[in-house]
Amino acid sequence: MADTSWPTCSRILKGVILDLCGVLYDSGEGGGVAIPGSVEAVKKLKASGLQVRFCTNETQDARPSFVAKLQRLGFDIAVSEVFSPAPASVAVLKDRGLRPHLLVHDALFPEFDNVDTNNPNCVVIGDAAEKFTYQNLNEAFRVLIELEKPVLFSLGQGRYYKETDGLKLDVGVFMKALEYACDLKAEVIGKPSPVFFQSVLNDMGLQPREALMIGDDLVNDVGGAQRCGIQGIQVRTGKYR
Amino acid sequence: MADTSWPTCSRILKGVILDLCGVLYDSGEGGGVAIPGSVEAVKKLKASGLQVRFCTNETQDARPSFVAKLQRLGFDIAVSEVFSPAPASVAVLKDRGLRPHLLVHDALFPEFDNVDTNNPNCVVIGDAAEKFTYQNLNEAFRVLIELEKPVLFSLGQGRYYKETDGLKLDVGVFMKALEYACDLKAEVIGKPSPVFFQSVLNDMGLQPREALMIGDDLVNDVGGAQRCGIQGIQVRTGKYR
Repeated sequence: MADTSWPTCSRILKGVILDLCGVLYDSGEGGGVAIPGSVEAVKKLKASGLQVRFCTNETQDARPSFVAKLQRLGFDIAVSEVFSPAPASVAVLKDRGLRPHLLVHDALFPEFDNVDTNNPNCVVIGDAAEKFTYQNLNEAFRVLIELEKPVLFSLGQGRYYKETDGLKLDVGVFMKALEYACDLKAEVIGKPSPVFFQSVLNDMGLQPREALMIGDDLVNDVGGAQRCGIQGIQVRTGKYR
Repeated sequence: MADTSWPTCSRILKGVILDLCGVLYDSGEGGGVAIPGSVEAVKKLKASGLQVRFCTNETQDARPSFVAKLQRLGFDIAVSEVFSPAPASVAVLKDRGLRPHLLVHDALFPEFDNVDTNNPNCVVIGDAAEKFTYQNLNEAFRVLIELEKPVLFSLGQGRYYKETDGLKLDVGVFMKALEYACDLKAEVIGKPSPVFFQSVLNDMGLQPREALMIGDDLVNDVGGAQRCGIQGIQVRTGKYR
């Protein structure tokens, strides 16, 4: 972070938005590990009277089980404080009367429990990992190509991430694949979409200049926040190089 | 075709380049079926003294078995007359001293029999179909991301094709996926690459204006040929709409 801007910002600061993976914990076997000092940092932020929200592009898990995992790591965190792409997409789907064909991780399905998926008129893809098979991609493609106005929602646009057994392709890669196949532009839900950051601000009832985003990703966290007028700080943990 | 240009072209015409699928035969179960009149058309072209070559982006089969299939349909065709992306890529690999990681259909491997694939320093993808699994895509991605100067060859850039059981995603879709993941631009081998058409001209010893390309794909066949100065004609069979 730029030290010189901290005092200016801190005078009007009312809320902090924290990325999760790479900022508060490192993912891995058995739920990952808390980054040293992060459990205490969240505690202090909340004790200071600042509003705190958590903003993640995690789409391999539904929020309740995802949050339970973080609580086990020691974090003071509630489901209602966590913003992730899946529930944001549900709001968009309901708002626009869309019924999705879902190409997402099995563990994410609970987020779509109350969504009508019959006779789909759009496609939603998340980080489906092993479920990104040729057959499943063909199925999503066929839904899109049959539609008069094909709509593809991508829960994030990441290129890849690191797991204990190596680098893995992220959802953005398959978004690009389907974009090319159908000659369309996907709508990205999640960071760095300004709509996503705005929904966090709305929940806190704050103006952009009253909030601060802290993340490890220069494009999705810092860049996305800045495009909304939210000051962004990049930490030197997680994917920071 | 534009009838008015035919006489001009025919006066100096010395060679004809024919696309295969959609022009001479329709693919499908058991090797497909010849398009009515096409077996005779090839016979007449050859009898007229014109040089005839076949130019295809087929990468699900090695040429010998592919050509045998066409011979069974009645076509007068030899392996040496067929130009396809795999052998073209082998020439490029040898010329540039590259050792590929191959993500191609099992049936295509014989084309790469004499290619060193140890300690790969580039990736070649073809229409691998069911072999485009998450795991195989991750493997190709990891080879590329570890290279100082990653090189990706794509055997064609098609979006999709039709089989008897529905539309299927083609190699171009997975090319775009890996391009995005690695932030690179793939080198396309096959139609509509000018290098590919030029290799056919070289084989016939002809100038572009002495040849004619006949295909059913406006971009890959007609457009590709035209960019080389070869006149292109689109037939109304195959994928023509």
